[in-house]
This record gives sequence, C-alpha cells and structure tokens, in this order.
Amino acid sequence: MAMSSLVQCHVGWCCLTLQRWQMNCQNRTLAAWTSATAQRTHKQKRLAEQLRMAKVRPSILWRAGPLGRRALHTSFTSSQEVMLTSERYGVQRLPFSHVSDSDLAFFEHMIPGGVITDPEELKPFNVDWLQSVRGSSKLLLRPRTTAQVSEILRYCNERNLAVNPQGGNTGLVGGSVPVFDEIILSTALMNQVISFDSVSGVLVCQAGCILENLNQYLEELDFIMPLDLGAKGSCHIGGNVATNAGGLRLLRYGSLRGTVLGLEVVLANGSVLNCLTSLRKDNTGYDLKQLFIGSEGTLGVITAVSILCPRKPMAVNLAFLGCQSFSQILETFTTCKGMLGEILSAYEFMDDRCMKLVVSHLKLSNPVTESPFFILIETSGSNTTHDQEKLNNFLECVMASGLVTDGTVATDDKKIKTLWALRERITEALTYDGYVFKYDISLPVEKLYDLVIDTRVRLGRSAKNVVGYGHLGDGNLHLNITAESYSHTLLDAIEPFVYEWTAKYRGSISAEHGLGFKKKHYIQYSKPWETVLLMQQFKAMLDPKGILNPYKTLPSSS
Amino acid sequence: MAMSSLVQCHVGWCCLTLQRWQMNCQNRTLAAWTSATAQRTHKQKRLAEQLRMAKVRPSILWRAGPLGRRALHTSFTSSQEVMLTSERYGVQRLPFSHVSDSDLAFFEHMIPGGVITDPEELKPFNVDWLQSVRGSSKLLLRPRTTAQVSEILRYCNERNLAVNPQGGNTGLVGGSVPVFDEIILSTALMNQVISFDSVSGVLVCQAGCILENLNQYLEELDFIMPLDLGAKGSCHIGGNVATNAGGLRLLRYGSLRGTVLGLEVVLANGSVLNCLTSLRKDNTGYDLKQLFIGSEGTLGVITAVSILCPRKPMAVNLAFLGCQSFSQILETFTTCKGMLGEILSAYEFMDDRCMKLVVSHLKLSNPVTESPFFILIETSGSNTTHDQEKLNNFLECVMASGLVTDGTVATDDKKIKTLWALRERITEALTYDGYVFKYDISLPVEKLYDLVIDTRVRLGRSAKNVVGYGHLGDGNLHLNITAESYSHTLLDAIEPFVYEWTAKYRGSISAEHGLGFKKKHYIQYSKPWETVLLMQQFKAMLDPKGILNPYKTLPSSS
Ligand SMILES: Cc1cc2nc3c(=O)[nH]c(=O)nc-3n(C[C@H](O)[C@H](O)[C@H](O)COP(=O)(O)OP(=O)(O)OC[C@H]3O[C@@H](n4cnc5c(N)ncnc54)[C@H](O)[C@@H]3O)c2cc1C
Ligand SMILES: Cc1cc2nc3c(=O)[nH]c(=O)nc-3n(C[C@H](O)[C@H](O)[C@H](O)COP(=O)(O)OP(=O)(O)OC[C@H]3O[C@@H](n4cnc5c(N)ncnc54)[C@H](O)[C@@H]3O)c2cc1C
Repeated sequence: MAMSSLVQCHVGWCCLTLQRWQMNCQNRTLAAWTSATAQRTHKQKRLAEQLRMAKVRPSILWRAGPLGRRALHTSFTSSQEVMLTSERYGVQRLPFSHVSDSDLAFFEHMIPGGVITDPEELKPFNVDWLQSVRGSSKLLLRPRTTAQVSEILRYCNERNLAVNPQGGNTGLVGGSVPVFDEIILSTALMNQVISFDSVSGVLVCQAGCILENLNQYLEELDFIMPLDLGAKGSCHIGGNVATNAGGLRLLRYGSLRGTVLGLEVVLANGSVLNCLTSLRKDNTGYDLKQLFIGSEGTLGVITAVSILCPRKPMAVNLAFLGCQSFSQILETFTTCKGMLGEILSAYEFMDDRCMKLVVSHLKLSNPVTESPFFILIETSGSNTTHDQEKLNNFLECVMASGLVTDGTVATDDKKIKTLWALRERITEALTYDGYVFKYDISLPVEKLYDLVIDTRVRLGRSAKNVVGYGHLGDGNLHLNITAESYSHTLLDAIEPFVYEWTAKYRGSISAEHGLGFKKKHYIQYSKPWETVLLMQQFKAMLDPKGILNPYKTLPSSS
Repeated sequence: MAMSSLVQCHVGWCCLTLQRWQMNCQNRTLAAWTSATAQRTHKQKRLAEQLRMAKVRPSILWRAGPLGRRALHTSFTSSQEVMLTSERYGVQRLPFSHVSDSDLAFFEHMIPGGVITDPEELKPFNVDWLQSVRGSSKLLLRPRTTAQVSEILRYCNERNLAVNPQGGNTGLVGGSVPVFDEIILSTALMNQVISFDSVSGVLVCQAGCILENLNQYLEELDFIMPLDLGAKGSCHIGGNVATNAGGLRLLRYGSLRGTVLGLEVVLANGSVLNCLTSLRKDNTGYDLKQLFIGSEGTLGVITAVSILCPRKPMAVNLAFLGCQSFSQILETFTTCKGMLGEILSAYEFMDDRCMKLVVSHLKLSNPVTESPFFILIETSGSNTTHDQEKLNNFLECVMASGLVTDGTVATDDKKIKTLWALRERITEALTYDGYVFKYDISLPVEKLYDLVIDTRVRLGRSAKNVVGYGHLGDGNLHLNITAESYSHTLLDAIEPFVYEWTAKYRGSISAEHGLGFKKKHYIQYSKPWETVLLMQQFKAMLDPKGILNPYKTLPSSS
C-alpha cells in the first residue's frame, strides 16, 4: 500500500502532451535539479525493497535473525513448496561424498557460528528467488575471511564434497542454489569495504558486500557504483561479478569486464589467486581475472573485488515516453544517441502488457496515455542546465516529428524513483501473474521485438501473458511468458523455439543472466562446439574434481 | 621541415595569460568549433606520419613495393645494423625445426605471392620500431584469409616450426619480431572491413586493418574507433588487441576489454576459435576472447575483430597548459574530472625535459611559457556551446586558483593537431636523443612522478636524459631514459631498480605495452607466482609445443 500511494501521487511532475511540451521547451528549461534531490535516501529504498520482496514472495519474510537482518526466512507450507530440481528435471546426482559428522565437526571448529544445519533456516538458501528450483543442501557455511574460504575449499576438494557458492541468491537461472545436497558457501558475512581511493575512484571490497550498500557508501563520497540493477538491495558484488551482471547503467559505464580492475579468487583446491590490483592499466601477462567474471561459481569463489567507480553525476533527469510502434522506439533511440550523446545513461523499453501487469498487480499508475510501447530515458551529467537543455531539445524534436506521442519528465528524486519503479518492478509483477518462463536474449535491435510477436503467435492461448521489455540500448530483450503453473508441454512449445529463433539472428540466449542450471544445455545455440569444448578444458584444469557448482553453466563433458 | 613550419605558424590560436583568459571567459565563448573542422584530413596525416617515420629512423624509407605501400624498407649499412637479440641478451634457441625447402614449397603452393624470402625485403620485419632488437627470420608469410592462417599453423605445429605473429610492428617491448629464425606471420594483407552496423556502432574487420584506416572509414559514417595512439598510421587492429593497447582515448571510452565484443582466433594447432559475436552482451559460458586480448601472440593468432565504436563527437576542444608542480597537475585533474565530467576525453602530461626534446629534435614550438610541467586536456562532446562553456568555466577556475599558470586553447583542426603533436611525438623525439630505455608504468597517481625524480637522482650523469610523460588520467607513466648508446652497465643501474620501486607501490611494470621479449623476466614484480604458474598452464594447454611467439611474455616454465 505504501508503494502504491507513493505512485499515485502525481503532484509536481510535468506530464506533457506535444503542445505543452513544445511550450515548455520554448519558455523554460526543466524544473531545476540539484544533486541533493537526486540522492535517494537509503532507508526509504531499503524499506521499499523489503516490502517489494515480501510482496513478491508472500510466504517469505524479511526479518532480523541469527543469519543477519537481510536473510530470508520462510514460512512455507508443504503445499507451497517448490518441486525439487532433481525431480522436475530428472537429474542424476554425481558421485560426490556426503557430508559426515566429522565434516561438520571440522567446519564448526574452523568457523564457529558460521555453520548452519537447521532445516528451517536452510530452506530459503535452497530455493531461488523465482521459486522455480529447489535443492536439498543440509549445510550452509558462512565464512568471514578469504583464508576461511580457502580452508573450506581445500577440505572439500580433498573430501570430494560439492560446493555451491552463493551471494544474494537473486540469480534468475537457477545457478545460485544446489541441485542436490551441495554445501552452500555463502559470502553474506564477507561484507567489508577494504579501501576506497577518492582520487582514482577505485573501491576494493569483500565479495559479500550488498550492491546497494556499496552505492550508498560511495554516494556519501560523491561517487557511485558503475552498475545498478533491480536486485541491488540483496545481490552481492561477488554475485554480480560471478554472473557478469549488466543492468541499468551498462549503457553508460560499460560492462564489468572494463570496470572490474581486480579480483581475489579461491580455486577449487583452496589456493588463493591474487589478482586484486587497483590499477586502471596492467598488461603484465594474461588477464586471468576475466575468466572468473561470468563463470557463475564454477571456476572459483570470488572473495574480493576491485572496481572503478564513476563520480556521482551532478544532475539526473528522467523521461518516460509513450510510443506507437517498435520501429519508432528504434528511431527515437538513434535520435537520442545523437542529441543526448555523452549524458545518456539509460534507454529502457517495455510493452503495453508489461504496463498492464505493473498496474494490475502492483497498483502502480501509468503516468502517460495508453500506448503500445513505453520508453524510459535517463540522463546523468555534470551540468544541470546543459543537461536539461539537451533533454528539452531532444524531446521537442521527437515530439514534433511524431516519434513519441506522449511523455512525462520527473524533476525530483521521489518521482524519478516512481517512474523507475514502472520498469524495475516488472520482474516482480510477473511473479504475481503465475509461473514465469524467463528469457534474457541479445539480438540485433531491429529484430528485438519480433521475437515477442512470434512467440505470442506461436503460444496462442496456452500462455497467460507473453511480454517484452529490457535494456534496448544494449540490444537486450527480456522475454517473459507466464502461465497458471509450470507445465512441461508449455516449456516444450517455448524451447527450443526461442533459442532457435535467437540463433537464426545470431543473438545470445543469455545476454546478462548467465546459463546457471536452466540454460546450460542450450549453450550451443550461441556458441560453436569448439568453444564449449575449450571451456570444458578450462573447467577441468581449474577444478579437476568438478566440486564447484556442479550441474551448472556447461553441459557435462562426457 | 614541413612539420616544423606547420608548428611555428601560430596565427589563430588563443594563447592566454591569466588576465586574458579571464577576459575571454567573461566576454565570449571559445571560438566556434564545427564537426567539420574537427576532422583531420587523412592525406595530411598520412604524409606527416610518413615524414615522421622517415625522420625517426633515417635509414628506413617508406616506399610502395611488392609488399604494399606501407611496408618498411631499409637501407641499413652494416654499421647501423641492430645487434642480434640472441647475442645481446645471450638467448638459447629452442629445439624448433628449421624451415626446409619442402616447407617453402608447401607455403608457396598455399599462398602464391604471399611468401617472402628475400633477405633485403625481410630486414625491416626482423627489427622492431625502436631498432632495439633483431631476429633472423628467413621467411615471412602474408596470408589473406583465416583459412590460410589456419592451414599455416596446422602445418607449423605438425612440423614444430616456431611462428611470430606480426601486425604493424610498432610494439615497444620487442614482442613483434623474431628472436631467432621464427617464421613471421604478418596480417598485413588481412585488411578488409567485414561489416559495420550504424545502429549498434559495431565494426567487424580482419585483424590486419590499420587503425587509422579504420578510423577514417568510420569518420565518414559519423563514428570513430574507441582507441587512438601515436602509431595509428601503422599499427593493426589485431596488434592492438594482441597487446591490449591503451592509448589516448582510454580515459573516455574504456579499455579494449570492454569495447572488443568478439574475436576470431586461430590456435596453435590450426583450429579456428569463432568468438566473433557482435553483441554488446553475451553471458553464455566463459568469455574466452578475453584470454587472447593482451596475450601478445603467444596463445593464438587473432584473425578478425568485432569492436564497439562510439559516435564521432560533434565538438572537440584542446587546452595545453603550463603547471608549476606535479601536485598541481593532480589537483587540476581532480578539478577537471568534476567540471568537465562526461566530456573529458584526454588528460595527458609531460615534463619540461620532454618539451626540450620535441623542441630541439623536432623543431616544434612550445606554445606557452616555460614551465616544469605541461598538461594536455581534450574534450569531446555532442554540443559545441555546452562544451566550450564547461571548458571556459574550468579554465577560469584553475587559472584563478593558480593551479595553472599559462595555457593555450586550439580552435581548429590544424592547431589541435599541432598541440597534440607536442605530446604524441615525444616517443619519436626520444629516438633522436640516443638509445632509449623505455618503461611503461602504472602507479597510484600521487606517486607517478616520484619515480622519475628518484631515477634521475640514481642515474646522475650516466644517463643523457630521464623524462616522464604519459596518460595521467589512467595512472600511466612513460619513464624514458636516453643514453648515447646501449650499455649493459646503465641497464643494470636502471633494472631492477625501476621494477622494485614500482612493486613497492603496487604498480604495474607494464601498463599498456605488454611484456614481449624485454620484460618477460620481470613479470613477478607485478604478479604473484601462482598467477604466473596458471598463465603457464594456459599457455601449455593452448599451445603444447610452444610454437607461438616463443621467448616472449612469460618466463619459461622450466
Ligand atoms: C529483481 C531482479 C532484477 C534483476 N535485474 C538484473 C539486471 O538488470 N541485470 C542483470 O544482469 N541481472 C539482473 N538480475 C539477475 C542477476 O544475476 C543477479 O541479481 C545478480 O547479479 C546476482 O547476484 P547475487 O549475489 O544474488 O548472486 P547469486 O544469485 O547468489 O548467485 C548467482 C551465481 O553466481 C555465483 N556466485 C555468487 N557469488 C559468488 C562468488 N562470490 N564467487 C563465485 N560465484 C558466486 C552463484 O554460484 C551463482 O551461480 C536481477 C534479479 C532480480 C531478482
Ligand atoms: C609512436 C608509438 C606510439 C605508441 N603509443 C601507444 C599508446 O599510446 N598506447 C599503447 O598501448 N601502445 C602504444 N604503442 C605501442 C603499441 O603496443 C603498438 O603500437 C600497437 O598496439 C601494436 O600494434 P601492431 O599492429 O604494431 O603490433 P606488432 O607490433 O606487430 O605486435 C605487437 C605484439 O602483438 C602480437 N600480434 C600482432 N598482431 C597479432 C595478431 N593478429 N594475432 C596475435 N598476435 C599478434 C605480436 O606477436 C607482438 O607480440 C606505441 C607505439 C609507437 C611506435
């Protein structure tokens, strides 16, 4: 309720039709923005996300407890219980050892207080955020130091015990929870900032720092994290790096492959690989850290991250626009890149079905007139007046040419958040709609929406909703299909259709979410077999016993 | 002479003292800039570089010949001949096969016209740009296609013939030329653009395309390459990727690790690894291409590159400033990042000794008053008026606060080039000064210049000049020491001193040039031995016989 009343309060927005917009552009610049108003207060955001999370997963509550205040606690009843992954997908357990009493004794001696075996406490760590896969781990370890992670892995490797590294457990491809009884190795207590250098903007921190906490920490020092995503209140920086997360700022600050300067990683045998440099440039030998970025916990456990952080922009502006066709979205994008240039920081789109879902399930309000498509454009820059002038000129141009038919511009932090919520909370709204089949596709932008249309036609009434949204600026579509419940028949109608369609246009079947458990068998739609073979060789070299996150990312080499 | 008269013509610059600058800022914006004037004409640049090259290496002439117009031809007399690397450094040849007549016959049959054995023609391909190392290869191969590269490598691998991949041969660490009789595999004829997509800005091309040609090609389509360096007229994009080149635009567009989207690579055994995607995001498995970026020809031959190119900026401005101390340079940098923000595209520095060298050896003119340090600041943006206003405000601020004592701003393309030349041509001026010991160091910016001072003190009169310049915005110092001729004693005074100094402050002993032949034994100053061990394992896995660029990058594993 708190969220919806926040959304319905429109006072102070500038909601403009073409005529009013033109007037606006001629007579005044956008209402003044200050860096102060651009700061979102941390507490508000935390609360909002906690509410959000509680809503998404009605059976799951946030509470402070022995696992720390951000831990998830469940009150599952058996009827709500997610089917075991091994049963739903018919997976065979690999011949790893089982955790014995003497193993437990060893761990308890090593990290007193960091060993969880209580089945109730373990539940949320066995189920993914989407509640779509479930493992049956009997042991959660929460080390605080790299040395402890090293000792744990050395021991597990010797004992042939499988390990599932886990960060905030917000991954969307079933990579973050065990398939069977793998030991869950959580970074939740590895949450210390190691250093920040305000001249270079380089932050060094442990892998378990929550993304939003880091951003908050930096904002106070006039910097921001170079990435941002809807799960920021829960996901860990280590998890972000392990999944090579993209998110909402990639368009502006580039991928983690450029911004992550260093990593500390513990390999399967417990040896610590120290690539934790803070240098912007370092061409001494091969860049090993790159192999761990996006390796989804299968090659090593990331224990610390060094990352280049941009200055906090002085001015942030947001425009939310209505558009009549997808081709107009593309043309608007081209115009936007030209006219907003270096200040463009996000170009997101969503279709009308997404809007219907956030309106009906989350009680958010559509701030513009009904349209087949919506665009969210964010600018971040160093000069308020210049940025507003650029945005005004751009809006005037796209309205005059008819590319955009309606729009609204937010002029303070609260409204910016409200507009962002329409886009950021689609993932959540979908979970209310039923079981969600999620696809995270890269395609040439011209082709992006055709996949949604073709899937809709193909599935007809067997799907409840087929929606498209995503990071258009990066050529990244989130195609989501909802149904009353999970169904093998529906899955068969979707896959491999969606993958084949994507492969036909040389797209990627996972743009930013990774392959995890759910997509590992489809890698060949985006990668030639020689490259998969080479990946398997790397895996075999770094983790010969295969103890790290088994059943994930790569098809088995046999 | 052509160059120096160009430089001496000052008319039209705004060369300002504090007073005049303040007036300027109050009364007018910088002289108008158009995107048209910002375009450098290609021919002029080519000519200038050819002159430059001819000057640097008086014994080397550019001429059109059977090897194409960009090939280097020498008229070495034996007295000028560079000492053989194997002799100067006392290297032992590894037990590779020697090229036989039947090998030659095989190659000639496979790539008719692409086989060079004439000793005179081979000479420039055996000597590096600095004329500091020399090999004795008897065979140069110039394939045109990936299939040919694949066939060559498969054959060489079977025959145990060592291969030295070569691009434009502008590398500065002795990696691009053979140490003994390795076959030189040149990408010079692999110079075709494969595709360019003006919506996404993604360019796909063969590895042998010359950087400047690509930039020229893109400029006509309103885009630019995301990297730029002094060697642009000769270096190949494949060589840039193989060295993970940094250069002058890294500050703005980030490193190649973020902008290179895909690679096609031929492995030592001839198999073709196709990672040539054009997608901005692709998280399907490990990012194998990253391993080849910066691997200096030791893991595979890069045959094609897919790279994300930014829009051509509408406005480019350049300021050349004088500064009284290094700490003021740092403070100016912090101010600059804040006030120029997203439009800052280069922040370079040079000391007064560099200025003396370009003035005395190249007859360039110092456009500002004598100062201990000079800064070159470039802005690139989408709005001329906004950019000039930002630059004006910034200049006003740093002049008023005394951070900067004199400065000049260039307002058209010709003058921009002239000012850039002062910085870009230092490398060249140094070669006139004698034998050059080159160090390319990353350090925390606060420490950057201390290394120059300490080295100067240490070497005293045994060095001719000890100078410092570089990409300050990236924490990258080029420390250069000149002497009348190469001397073991001087080298021993410099190394490992410079490396130990760098290691003490956790810097990198190679920021952007790579390790090549000259620095491979010093890797441990920047990388812990476990990581070097892992690199060696990767090398052994991908190139078990070690035929690719032997004697380079990594110390031998035995
Ligand atoms: C609401 C919502 C919005 C999202 N939006 C985006 C988005 O915009 N862009 C995007 O890219 N993703 C998005 N995601 C998915 C994204 O992958 C994750 O949110 C995030 O990057 C994962 O971080 P985590 O700490 O939760 O990792 P987890 O979910 O715990 O783990 C993810 C994977 O990484 C591995 N892993 C975790 N930590 C480590 C470690 N320290 N060392 C080695 N391996 C480790 C795990 O084994 C697993 O394979 C979103 C998710 C949600 C729920
Ligand atoms: C005047 C001047 C200015 C410079 N400025 C900069 C600068 O600002 N920033 C910077 O980073 N560097 C700079 N450099 C050095 C830089 O490394 C090179 O100029 C460039 O990146 C090398 O490209 P190339 O084609 O000449 O490669 P080469 O010199 O031919 O080769 C360099 C290395 O790459 C390997 N290689 C080349 N092509 C391939 C391929 N296709 N596949 C596999 N391996 C290959 C070679 O084996 C060798 O080890 C400068 C050099 C000069 C002469």
